[in-house]
Amino acid sequence: MSSPLRLGVAGLGTVGGALLKLLDRQAAALAARTGREIAVVAVSAQNRGKVRDLDPARFDWASDPVALAASPDIDVFVELIGGADGVARAAVETALQEGKSVVTANKALLAKHGLHLARLAEAKGVALGFEASVAGGIPIVKTLRDSLAGNRVSRVYGILNGTCNYILSRMEAEQLSFGQCLAEAQKLGYAEADPSFDIGGYDTAHKLAILTALAFGTEIAADAIAVEGIEHITLADISAAAELGYRIKLLGVAERTAAGIEQRVHPTMVPRSSAIAQVMGVTNAVTIDADAVQELTLVGPGAGGAATASAVVADIADVARGLKAPPFGLPLKSLAPLHRAPLQTHEGGYYIRLSVYDRSGAAAAIAARMAERAISLESIVQRRRPGELKGASAVPVVLITHATSEKLIGEALKAVLADGFIAEPPQVIRIERE
Amino acid sequence: MSSPLRLGVAGLGTVGGALLKLLDRQAAALAARTGREIAVVAVSAQNRGKVRDLDPARFDWASDPVALAASPDIDVFVELIGGADGVARAAVETALQEGKSVVTANKALLAKHGLHLARLAEAKGVALGFEASVAGGIPIVKTLRDSLAGNRVSRVYGILNGTCNYILSRMEAEQLSFGQCLAEAQKLGYAEADPSFDIGGYDTAHKLAILTALAFGTEIAADAIAVEGIEHITLADISAAAELGYRIKLLGVAERTAAGIEQRVHPTMVPRSSAIAQVMGVTNAVTIDADAVQELTLVGPGAGGAATASAVVADIADVARGLKAPPFGLPLKSLAPLHRAPLQTHEGGYYIRLSVYDRSGAAAAIAARMAERAISLESIVQRRRPGELKGASAVPVVLITHATSEKLIGEALKAVLADGFIAEPPQVIRIERE
Repeated sequence: MSSPLRLGVAGLGTVGGALLKLLDRQAAALAARTGREIAVVAVSAQNRGKVRDLDPARFDWASDPVALAASPDIDVFVELIGGADGVARAAVETALQEGKSVVTANKALLAKHGLHLARLAEAKGVALGFEASVAGGIPIVKTLRDSLAGNRVSRVYGILNGTCNYILSRMEAEQLSFGQCLAEAQKLGYAEADPSFDIGGYDTAHKLAILTALAFGTEIAADAIAVEGIEHITLADISAAAELGYRIKLLGVAERTAAGIEQRVHPTMVPRSSAIAQVMGVTNAVTIDADAVQELTLVGPGAGGAATASAVVADIADVARGLKAPPFGLPLKSLAPLHRAPLQTHEGGYYIRLSVYDRSGAAAAIAARMAERAISLESIVQRRRPGELKGASAVPVVLITHATSEKLIGEALKAVLADGFIAEPPQVIRIERE
Repeated sequence: MSSPLRLGVAGLGTVGGALLKLLDRQAAALAARTGREIAVVAVSAQNRGKVRDLDPARFDWASDPVALAASPDIDVFVELIGGADGVARAAVETALQEGKSVVTANKALLAKHGLHLARLAEAKGVALGFEASVAGGIPIVKTLRDSLAGNRVSRVYGILNGTCNYILSRMEAEQLSFGQCLAEAQKLGYAEADPSFDIGGYDTAHKLAILTALAFGTEIAADAIAVEGIEHITLADISAAAELGYRIKLLGVAERTAAGIEQRVHPTMVPRSSAIAQVMGVTNAVTIDADAVQELTLVGPGAGGAATASAVVADIADVARGLKAPPFGLPLKSLAPLHRAPLQTHEGGYYIRLSVYDRSGAAAAIAARMAERAISLESIVQRRRPGELKGASAVPVVLITHATSEKLIGEALKAVLADGFIAEPPQVIRIERE
């Protein structure tokens, strides 16, 4: 057996703690699998007290993660600190520059500086593993990078944020408002005190940026993502979706189109019978459309200490086995710049919920505005909700369109608004085909 | 860039043909990903005419696959001939003995001789890749072997045979008999002229044997699998399952129990709301329960030329990158002998459909036989089907039990039969918990 693989672990929160326990429990199996003992030799955390649960005498203590990253006593630096910049970035850069492999769960760091870090790793011929940065325990990075090496991917999309999926699932199951479900998610620890990063779609966008690069062999371009959150989703939308055979999910979608690569994060109507619609609660799922494999879906835990640590261990095992694939599957010189498809050229169906003043001819006028732009309707439903007074000033009208373009929908809605029938800003939700 | 990786491909059926096209189409991308050109230098097939579509001048022709396997002109032997013995086995053994890596889609060969072949590969320090042998395009081998390296797996189960899943899906959707759906599957090319290997569960068993070894780090033991097919599933069972909140799937299940490793293939009742119940048609799915990742499900195409070729290419790419993991994740000396749990100790719920002579007290007597063995019932339904004549000699009684053991169910049914109320052999279908 070769010499032990010596790890320095920075960050001992939920994932770091779970990682140390997992490495302990699986020590013999991992040594057998990889041919090397995997040994944590030093740890670093903001609060040294945290290490006490874990028999601190077993590990060297490094008060400075950057110093740990540079230590000659470690072969692999495991970064579980978090944050796109600051100490996490400094430590990872240091480790790579010192010729050490890095394993990280840090999606923000990867989304912002992934290319730069891959360049450092490539220059030193070391590994940069980030399986844990996207969709927790789901092996989506390895699947895209290695298992689909023979495929041309046309689309990758998924439920990448457990908080949002939990909220949307609860809204539907319990007929509760967005605000009520968010409060509940915060109480259960599924949502942060400041939830805007999750519910605004930004967490999903970071993960999507990484998936896009892996799926299409392009440079990471997190700033080329159109992002909408779920804050404005109402029970009326959830119910209308159910009636019309859909379910609302916050999806990250990256798709190869004639106009370039589309990257978007937004609440999405998915057919109720689709695999992705069945994914409820904090579970994540990713679907890949590709020429050879057609459609492949992976469903599993998107967060949690043990599940995320499982992905970290997979990357560590790859390093132990000596696997040195380029971090994004392709060497940097082969990654193409991402040619961004503008959202205006997006084509698909749309769900539109309008609050229409109860005047005769309103629905007909709306339909006419659509027809003028050759937007054909799959359905149009105008219905008072039970208990709603007749003569209420505005009634809901829900349209489902066949495939059209973002640009035409925008123009049609502008015309509808100008007609003066509309009481509130329209609710527009894109429909994702299966 | 290193020297090209030279492939010899034996077998040019659906998968072989798709593989040559895929390697062609993805040549540049694969070279960039792996750092080596991947070149098919020679092919072999029963019927040389097949090569004509593929510009035969590009490949050397080998009339004997074993000679191809031994050829000094190739680095990797790709075996797509099929069959557990005969020329496929001879050729694979020859290639490994000559120190060439082997990539194969041959589940029968692996299930029967996997350990022997892994021993040859290990002795020569070459790779033996068989991602394509289980669940077609789903990267389940790599997921179990590499991505879950830090996990202790407690159960792996899945829909591993598209033919059976197609038939069961059609029976439910169209209310057709098993025979009608089988005939249709044969017409569509989803089932062989002799379908017994698929519908009898033996194909699933081969794949399960491979998954078990990967999941539990045990020696392959295909003869330690309890196998039942779907031939005896009737529309009455499909309908009763639907009424009771279940769906019938042919599953392969391997589970760690106190009595050892259970390996079983049989029609299974799965909760209608479970992920696996949503998998319809020829699609395959595999779920893994493990301590760290909890539950992970992979859904995708279980067969088809391009999808299977995608898995073959993934293995070839791993060889090109120099990855040399032990074929079953662990070196042979670390694989434990499989300690087989007898089916009699299996614990779970049961669906039992009885055809009961229409005499008063019959249902009560049956319930009593169960109660005597502390088998508690979740439901008992005795109902004439619409249109059935009152006074018909026998009526269906469907029982769903809570968790009990295979042994107790067998004893209870023996007692029920002895009571003389039963007109036909009982239908017993195990329920798989989520």
